Amino acid sequence: MSHEIKYYWEDLAPGLVREMGGVTVSAQEIKEFAGQFDPQPFHIDEAAGRRSIYGNLCASGWHTCALAMRLTVQNFLNESSSMGSPGLEALRWLKPVYPGDTLRLQYKITESRPMRKRRDIGMVRATWEMFNQNDEKVLQMEGYGMFGRRTPATPEEIARMDLESTKDAAR
Amino acid sequence: MSHEIKYYWEDLAPGLVREMGGVTVSAQEIKEFAGQFDPQPFHIDEAAGRRSIYGNLCASGWHTCALAMRLTVQNFLNESSSMGSPGLEALRWLKPVYPGDTLRLQYKITESRPMRKRRDIGMVRATWEMFNQNDEKVLQMEGYGMFGRRTPATPEEIARMDLESTKDAAR
Repeated sequence: MSHEIKYYWEDLAPGLVREMGGVTVSAQEIKEFAGQFDPQPFHIDEAAGRRSIYGNLCASGWHTCALAMRLTVQNFLNESSSMGSPGLEALRWLKPVYPGDTLRLQYKITESRPMRKRRDIGMVRATWEMFNQNDEKVLQMEGYGMFGRRTPATPEEIARMDLESTKDAAR
Repeated sequence: MSHEIKYYWEDLAPGLVREMGGVTVSAQEIKEFAGQFDPQPFHIDEAAGRRSIYGNLCASGWHTCALAMRLTVQNFLNESSSMGSPGLEALRWLKPVYPGDTLRLQYKITESRPMRKRRDIGMVRATWEMFNQNDEKVLQMEGYGMFGRRTPATPEEIARMDLESTKDAAR
């Protein structure tokens, strides 16, 4: 299960954009995921999907997120020092995902900061955007990620963080 | 696939709290989900989990979300006029979920509003909180949900929305 680490926190600067490849989702996969985790009628039954506001069977939003995660792990995280995530902001399911749709994911790092409590870990914030074959955005979110550092934060780096948080508090 | 609707948008007032039951997650389920959607070492391999910051194999955060969704559908949405969700805010994976953990979900409606473009649909905002068997909160998020209305918005209701948005804009 070991993998070689190419990307540490220091390599993940704001502005970095990565294309995470693509995946095509089938009706069977949509119904299997939803049958297990989100068995609402429009996710598990074609006729119910046609009667719904979506006009067709469509994937659970959690399925779309899980597919985005798989692409991210396969194309990036498993070559990185990823240590998981504390959460995310502003997740939007912008368009339905239908059987046969081919989805591609773009990942862009927007912020980067050391962690005060763990000098060997850094945090990044990234925008995830997933598009279908018609270039319609189907998913967007702002996720946090923790990554191991190549070298631990120096005392100077921690002091600079403290200064910045003092400035923030004074605002 | 049809189900009887007990709960329409009008029945979902801010302050409503619902217990959504519980679910126990096994090591095999954790590894199966992660193998398919989040194959990071600490989600698919016990030894890698022990070496990680989590100290043990732990569930993908997306798996925890999917389990929360299943409880919500089984215990609430499939008796409701649910029409899906446009997204969520402030998702936090607060504690790791380990093999054998028993999770329970509490769902609390915090806001409710008509939809301007679809008078037959209303929106709610709800806080989802998931706890383990030690009453530690493992997951929190603020989700939006669309629900069919028992009766469409009246012209007065729409006018009131317009007035409120004018006030908001004037602030």
